[in-house]
Amino acid sequence: MTQPTHSEHSMPSEHSMRSERSMRSIHAEHFMQSCIDACNDCHQVCLQTAMNHCLNTGGKHVEPEHFRLMMSCAEICQTSANFQLSNSSFSHRLCAVCAEVCEACAVDCRKIGGMDECVEACKKCAESCRQMAGAQH
Amino acid sequence: MTQPTHSEHSMPSEHSMRSERSMRSIHAEHFMQSCIDACNDCHQVCLQTAMNHCLNTGGKHVEPEHFRLMMSCAEICQTSANFQLSNSSFSHRLCAVCAEVCEACAVDCRKIGGMDECVEACKKCAESCRQMAGAQH
Amino acid sequence: MTQPTHSEHSMPSEHSMRSERSMRSIHAEHFMQSCIDACNDCHQVCLQTAMNHCLNTGGKHVEPEHFRLMMSCAEICQTSANFQLSNSSFSHRLCAVCAEVCEACAVDCRKIGGMDECVEACKKCAESCRQMAGAQH
Amino acid sequence: MTQPTHSEHSMPSEHSMRSERSMRSIHAEHFMQSCIDACNDCHQVCLQTAMNHCLNTGGKHVEPEHFRLMMSCAEICQTSANFQLSNSSFSHRLCAVCAEVCEACAVDCRKIGGMDECVEACKKCAESCRQMAGAQH
Repeated sequence: MTQPTHSEHSMPSEHSMRSERSMRSIHAEHFMQSCIDACNDCHQVCLQTAMNHCLNTGGKHVEPEHFRLMMSCAEICQTSANFQLSNSSFSHRLCAVCAEVCEACAVDCRKIGGMDECVEACKKCAESCRQMAGAQH
Repeated sequence: MTQPTHSEHSMPSEHSMRSERSMRSIHAEHFMQSCIDACNDCHQVCLQTAMNHCLNTGGKHVEPEHFRLMMSCAEICQTSANFQLSNSSFSHRLCAVCAEVCEACAVDCRKIGGMDECVEACKKCAESCRQMAGAQH
Repeated sequence: MTQPTHSEHSMPSEHSMRSERSMRSIHAEHFMQSCIDACNDCHQVCLQTAMNHCLNTGGKHVEPEHFRLMMSCAEICQTSANFQLSNSSFSHRLCAVCAEVCEACAVDCRKIGGMDECVEACKKCAESCRQMAGAQH
Repeated sequence: MTQPTHSEHSMPSEHSMRSERSMRSIHAEHFMQSCIDACNDCHQVCLQTAMNHCLNTGGKHVEPEHFRLMMSCAEICQTSANFQLSNSSFSHRLCAVCAEVCEACAVDCRKIGGMDECVEACKKCAESCRQMAGAQH
């Protein structure tokens, strides 16, 4: 069964016996799983923060531009993860837009303050999606 | 209440009394609703065709590349519609990718054959999303 | 091609030549398409109202309980539509929960006021989903 | 900031100083996070398996009933996770249906064979959702 695992796995420490090609394939799979994990984490943190912390706190946290950005970030991260899980040939294109949304969300959350976990998840996801977007397909 | 309606509405036939600005705003709203409708229609047709016609027919219709493209098209159309409904500032960016996926899906469905409704919905959505992507934001 | 259309179609006015069985099948298809349309409409109106009218108006419109209900209603309507479009054998079960959420959302929107379109879409979807949930599978 | 974390956390080993009420609240939060994790894992495994292993293997793996069940399971797990992340008051109701879909998917995957990871993820999610559905709200 060739089904890729979804758990985190460490890179093999010994690989002298493996061909360059299979190493590249293993690397690509590991790379994509990292991006799926980052997208999934960012989706969860943004949705949870918006629908709990932001709604409960009010004020700047529910200003339309900020709240929409949080929800857009949550949704595109979910879709990016789903494209990668489905091995869609458009994963790289979607990751490029996802990186932009995450970057904007990180900046906005830092500006408003009190959402450090969100800032970190967005920055990490933006970085991972940028790498995925730039990878050869 | 400023909530935009989601029903189709015709353009006003008389507008000499309206300022250019408000006309542009009405045009933009009408324009976005057309794109939401096209995305929504494409989402429905692709998902329904993949999960019914393709699975029931088998053969080329369930080859991984084709089936993944149908499902990717359904999902990105849903997300594009949601971004526009939410008035996300990244709607235009997402529509650009959505147009590419729809275009590819239209080509693939025509090649395989027997999915005319899908070809039409994808082409119409691709055209609408391209216009949205190119519009001034 | 057996692919069900997603457009609205009128019931045949003459059917003396059709067997009872095929009539039942046509009725079921028409019935499901009505429910898909109602779910889709409710999803759009709830999401658009929450992310535009509610965020722009503030006050009671962004109180956590109300806003969460609007977003839950939008999401479960989307999922219910997708289950039916995919011909999932669990469509009826999901429609039962969808009807409850829509009913609660209609009540809450009427109480807060200024969201008549939302109240109507939720009530119509609740009624359609209740019928779908109670239908023989 | 009261935002619940999404990472796994162990239960406190000492709690004599805490009131019964706050212990219950901590327990409920931990309990929900476990269910979110189970839903998220099941969503990922089902989607990845369907769109890779099943499409690549063909035969019984792309028979309509099986494939639809895999995709229904992936989607309802995603929605259940989102309801819980949003603290929706209908989380328990949705988890009840999610448990049924996961249970059916586990049975079907075991019957077809070669999808052990999917069987495990579905069984674990079904158990977690059943507990959530039965919990006092």
